[in-house]
Amino acid sequence: MNRIGGSITLTLFGASHDSRIGCVIDGIPAGYPVNEDIITADLALRKPAEGIGTPRVEADVPEISGIVDGITTGCPVVITFSNSNTRSSDYEQLRRIPRPGHADYPAVCKFGPAHDIRGGGMFSGRMTTPLVAAGALLRDLIGSAGISVGSYVTRIGSVVDMNVYDVADIMTRSRTNPLRAMSPEIEERMRAEILSAKSKGDSVGGIVRCFAAGLPAGLGEPFFDNLDGEIAKAVFAIPGVKAVGFGEGFAAAGLRGSENNDAYRFFENSVVTTTNHAGGVLGGMSNGSVLDFSAAFKPTPSISKQQMSVDLVSQEDADLSVKGRHDPCIANRGAIVVEAMTVFTLADLAARGGFLV
Amino acid sequence: MNRIGGSITLTLFGASHDSRIGCVIDGIPAGYPVNEDIITADLALRKPAEGIGTPRVEADVPEISGIVDGITTGCPVVITFSNSNTRSSDYEQLRRIPRPGHADYPAVCKFGPAHDIRGGGMFSGRMTTPLVAAGALLRDLIGSAGISVGSYVTRIGSVVDMNVYDVADIMTRSRTNPLRAMSPEIEERMRAEILSAKSKGDSVGGIVRCFAAGLPAGLGEPFFDNLDGEIAKAVFAIPGVKAVGFGEGFAAAGLRGSENNDAYRFFENSVVTTTNHAGGVLGGMSNGSVLDFSAAFKPTPSISKQQMSVDLVSQEDADLSVKGRHDPCIANRGAIVVEAMTVFTLADLAARGGFLV
Amino acid sequence: MNRIGGSITLTLFGASHDSRIGCVIDGIPAGYPVNEDIITADLALRKPAEGIGTPRVEADVPEISGIVDGITTGCPVVITFSNSNTRSSDYEQLRRIPRPGHADYPAVCKFGPAHDIRGGGMFSGRMTTPLVAAGALLRDLIGSAGISVGSYVTRIGSVVDMNVYDVADIMTRSRTNPLRAMSPEIEERMRAEILSAKSKGDSVGGIVRCFAAGLPAGLGEPFFDNLDGEIAKAVFAIPGVKAVGFGEGFAAAGLRGSENNDAYRFFENSVVTTTNHAGGVLGGMSNGSVLDFSAAFKPTPSISKQQMSVDLVSQEDADLSVKGRHDPCIANRGAIVVEAMTVFTLADLAARGGFLV
Amino acid sequence: MNRIGGSITLTLFGASHDSRIGCVIDGIPAGYPVNEDIITADLALRKPAEGIGTPRVEADVPEISGIVDGITTGCPVVITFSNSNTRSSDYEQLRRIPRPGHADYPAVCKFGPAHDIRGGGMFSGRMTTPLVAAGALLRDLIGSAGISVGSYVTRIGSVVDMNVYDVADIMTRSRTNPLRAMSPEIEERMRAEILSAKSKGDSVGGIVRCFAAGLPAGLGEPFFDNLDGEIAKAVFAIPGVKAVGFGEGFAAAGLRGSENNDAYRFFENSVVTTTNHAGGVLGGMSNGSVLDFSAAFKPTPSISKQQMSVDLVSQEDADLSVKGRHDPCIANRGAIVVEAMTVFTLADLAARGGFLV
Repeated sequence: MNRIGGSITLTLFGASHDSRIGCVIDGIPAGYPVNEDIITADLALRKPAEGIGTPRVEADVPEISGIVDGITTGCPVVITFSNSNTRSSDYEQLRRIPRPGHADYPAVCKFGPAHDIRGGGMFSGRMTTPLVAAGALLRDLIGSAGISVGSYVTRIGSVVDMNVYDVADIMTRSRTNPLRAMSPEIEERMRAEILSAKSKGDSVGGIVRCFAAGLPAGLGEPFFDNLDGEIAKAVFAIPGVKAVGFGEGFAAAGLRGSENNDAYRFFENSVVTTTNHAGGVLGGMSNGSVLDFSAAFKPTPSISKQQMSVDLVSQEDADLSVKGRHDPCIANRGAIVVEAMTVFTLADLAARGGFLV
Repeated sequence: MNRIGGSITLTLFGASHDSRIGCVIDGIPAGYPVNEDIITADLALRKPAEGIGTPRVEADVPEISGIVDGITTGCPVVITFSNSNTRSSDYEQLRRIPRPGHADYPAVCKFGPAHDIRGGGMFSGRMTTPLVAAGALLRDLIGSAGISVGSYVTRIGSVVDMNVYDVADIMTRSRTNPLRAMSPEIEERMRAEILSAKSKGDSVGGIVRCFAAGLPAGLGEPFFDNLDGEIAKAVFAIPGVKAVGFGEGFAAAGLRGSENNDAYRFFENSVVTTTNHAGGVLGGMSNGSVLDFSAAFKPTPSISKQQMSVDLVSQEDADLSVKGRHDPCIANRGAIVVEAMTVFTLADLAARGGFLV
Repeated sequence: MNRIGGSITLTLFGASHDSRIGCVIDGIPAGYPVNEDIITADLALRKPAEGIGTPRVEADVPEISGIVDGITTGCPVVITFSNSNTRSSDYEQLRRIPRPGHADYPAVCKFGPAHDIRGGGMFSGRMTTPLVAAGALLRDLIGSAGISVGSYVTRIGSVVDMNVYDVADIMTRSRTNPLRAMSPEIEERMRAEILSAKSKGDSVGGIVRCFAAGLPAGLGEPFFDNLDGEIAKAVFAIPGVKAVGFGEGFAAAGLRGSENNDAYRFFENSVVTTTNHAGGVLGGMSNGSVLDFSAAFKPTPSISKQQMSVDLVSQEDADLSVKGRHDPCIANRGAIVVEAMTVFTLADLAARGGFLV
Repeated sequence: MNRIGGSITLTLFGASHDSRIGCVIDGIPAGYPVNEDIITADLALRKPAEGIGTPRVEADVPEISGIVDGITTGCPVVITFSNSNTRSSDYEQLRRIPRPGHADYPAVCKFGPAHDIRGGGMFSGRMTTPLVAAGALLRDLIGSAGISVGSYVTRIGSVVDMNVYDVADIMTRSRTNPLRAMSPEIEERMRAEILSAKSKGDSVGGIVRCFAAGLPAGLGEPFFDNLDGEIAKAVFAIPGVKAVGFGEGFAAAGLRGSENNDAYRFFENSVVTTTNHAGGVLGGMSNGSVLDFSAAFKPTPSISKQQMSVDLVSQEDADLSVKGRHDPCIANRGAIVVEAMTVFTLADLAARGGFLV
């Protein structure tokens, strides 16, 4: 289904080269003021960066309906974007010779000749534009419950940022550069890594670490709609994500209980944990600590380097060098999408758990 | 919600020390023969192993209704288990002094004094018994579409199994020992790792690697109910899971596109990939290769070693040494639960995608 | 799906001659006290009445789990009933020669030979037992929001009760007799009507009028999950219901707007309507007046009178005289089921609309 | 929720005076050809008729996305309409003095001052435009399973059409006139009835009878998503509908089982019923006979005749004469909306039951 959520739902529509793409957000309380500046700011962080991003640039001006005088009415909110900068002719060959690592082959198997291959169709990164707008639109909603979401890029290819940062810092500093890096020095190294791959007609992967501060303890619905599961489902919907881990993530497997458990203490009359190995999630519910998870993006599958594929018409092996306009790295642009899906999921779970009021 | 699934749904009910726990499975086609031997065999793999498991042992005899003469009728199938070996008095203190790393604290925040703390209530590993039975019951359903699911344990604490195995081997060999290890030698080392933690009143984590063979290309529903997202959501519902990664998982972030893309070739008139870095998932759909993902289990939070907690009544810091009967490691018992959630998710997605007939 | 509801959901399981039938209710807030007396009282109103009901009598003792010390814990609540008084041999012939007016034929078409024909299987009126218990269990939940639900029988065959009653009266008086009639005199006439049909091996239909008082204005979710639509869906799930109308119902078609519109006036500082042609629903939302709708039950299809049917095996026309134990009228027993589905729907919509708490 | 459906879903968005309204239809199989002529034809039947309809006339040109070269791609299909002929100033007073019989009062209670009162907001009959388009778009889908849907108007005010018609006749003849009447003579009488009400600043109700032919036996999902319940829910979503009855409907309450049961016979090797009192539904499933149900529309609440209302600001009783442009009768325009919701529901249930393909 092209829909996600329980009390607040998001329905995505359109495809990469459709005239319009967008989403319907249902379940936002009436009377909620929509701040378009936040939407503009978040969309800017999704745009391809000069030099390291795809040459396809869209205006990304959201058209928002379902609000009157900037306020939601209780109707669904619809956000749409027009697609103008499309070059569909780049893609026709891919129906026949699918790109390795891309959705082309399974999509043709699933949808047959009717599959819209233009620009990757519904599997294009372009589809994340309405997601970012939806997340941005909901930031103030979770904000009214004291929750804020941010992220930064901890890895691009071989460049790994091992530093420890303050959460408040992450919320602001990573928004100042298109690499979503926490320092100019790391930004520079990450940029170089991307350019190195690009120069060889190749691409590179990366890791986004996402945080949510201010969560009330008890957010998340047992048994199946729990906090980590709902976040994971939402984040795996983002094209290119291959792994999600909370707190220690896979490293937890190597720890002892006495190392991994987060001790409780009272601090200024509140219960806090002295560490956050759990990433803020226990038993599928927030424990009141900062939600902290990482998501891995694979390297962009569309590369100009020659690859081995097959010709589905002639039923023979075939080689392919992908044309079209593609990012050599999507992790940095993906960071704001991870944030958006996180904001959406927290808004929905807050609504379901009675944390909004 | 205590329900998961779209066309085939699973509703879980009960709590650790209720007289009965169970689940309702709705949407199984009428006329499907239920093989109770598979259920018995899978449940046996979930049982605590002598020496390394909890002393709480339940008979785990499933009562199955909704079938007549072993055949589904189109009604929902209900599987229940009785709980007999319960010692609820062990737990009352935990409502006041929550266990670090366990659901106690957020659950009390969420449900208040009404929270059923006995045996961990609905957050107990006990709740995975009906899940395993449900998965086992559905194995033949995906089997009729050619799909089979298996898993093995690749890591317990510091013991890591780096070997490469044949999928057919995994399906059978890992079922021969309670560690779900692929060789007696690794089993022995993993057992020693667990016993070492146990002897110190501690616990240890682990990693399960799960496979599904025989998937048709195109399984998985865009955009949000995709194969990886649905699997992840289902697996994160298992108590103790902290990370899920497909194929290369987090390692994909360090690869170039030319390394990570799986080349296509024709093999005996079928399209195959020469590698499986993607873990069998592209664009949220199966690409026809083996589904391959890993899930990390944290070390059991309930340890007898003394830990720092808080007394929620006196509002003071407090120390805690967890009593009750607990596994020093849940990853090995968790493997069959991961399989069960995978079988369930594949059955549901196969039904939704029209792959069952 | 055997599930209904959005925030509070009900999953029904079992079949007429299964050893147990029941339901799972998910989404009830933790800490809600379950009053078993109400359940017992409502179940008593569903029991067949001496002389006019089926000779099949079940003990109808609910087993309730998911509560501790009478209080919900946040887990799903499960209510089950054992079936003991079953005579499955009565039914085998019906797989071959379907009863006119009953689910037999379409069920066999849908489920094939696996269909559980015993006692009507999942299409039996027996399945309404857990529904009544679920509704009864939720009465106090809507009661805490000031809402109460009652009903009475306005018609049995040719006996029509055209009197106008006070809502408070209906809530109590109709519960004093098994016909759910509003006066001993009408009860007597309705009983005679049923006995007359019964004496000829025939059956008779009836109409239930159901009320809910105390609804806050604005209950009901636009556009599709509105108050009338959700009530109608829930009530049409009751076996035998053929029509549902709110307020004037079909008669509204013959009125002018100036006759059918309910005028607003202030009364003791509250907005009230001077009439209630709308049955308390405007635009799919409660308008603060009493919810008032009627549901028609068809005459029981299972009659001993000889009927024309077909033999699905020999592919020839065949005659049928239904054996087994059946009610000559289900409308009176159906009244409490209509109430139950109404209570459930109002509880769910109240939860979704934020009217609980 | 503004969404309906299980396997095929419809999400409605917009409001009467928004710049655009529309819907998202998800779950249509890829490769389905969209016939825009059917959409145009059905939309024409929804248009206000000269003389008896509202003077507000919209172009009603659908913009359809999610198709490429007229074929669905597996993406959701989005249909939108622009609103141009809006006069929002007509409505501001209604926030203060709600129209009797209209959604104004409960909507203001539910959404507060943020409620979009312009043109009735999301409660406007205007919202049925995308519904009609969606139904029209899906006609060929159920058509490929042999199912067709039609309707006619059986009553406008005091004019009742008691004739019996052939189903094939209904499918075509009722489409030839804006009253959806089955003969010029009845059309004339119905028109006179409407004009009589209109001339007095009043309005009048009506009844639509809807048919679906060609249903396979077994369509409809037990227990809660059954054929009659899903149809009823979908039809009660249409503004103004107050009652729904299948086959004999409320009249079934007055019949004996021997009168109401439909006898089975073999006819040309198929099982048929000799009558259709059940309206084609038994046990919540189609029995293979024609689906036959009626829906009552109340008289349009917006009338220019003076009515008693309240002033919510001054908290005093107030009189109201509704301005704005309104139909004196909506039943005839509503007929095609009833058909649309029926087509949608049948398409969804056919998908869920495996009847498509």
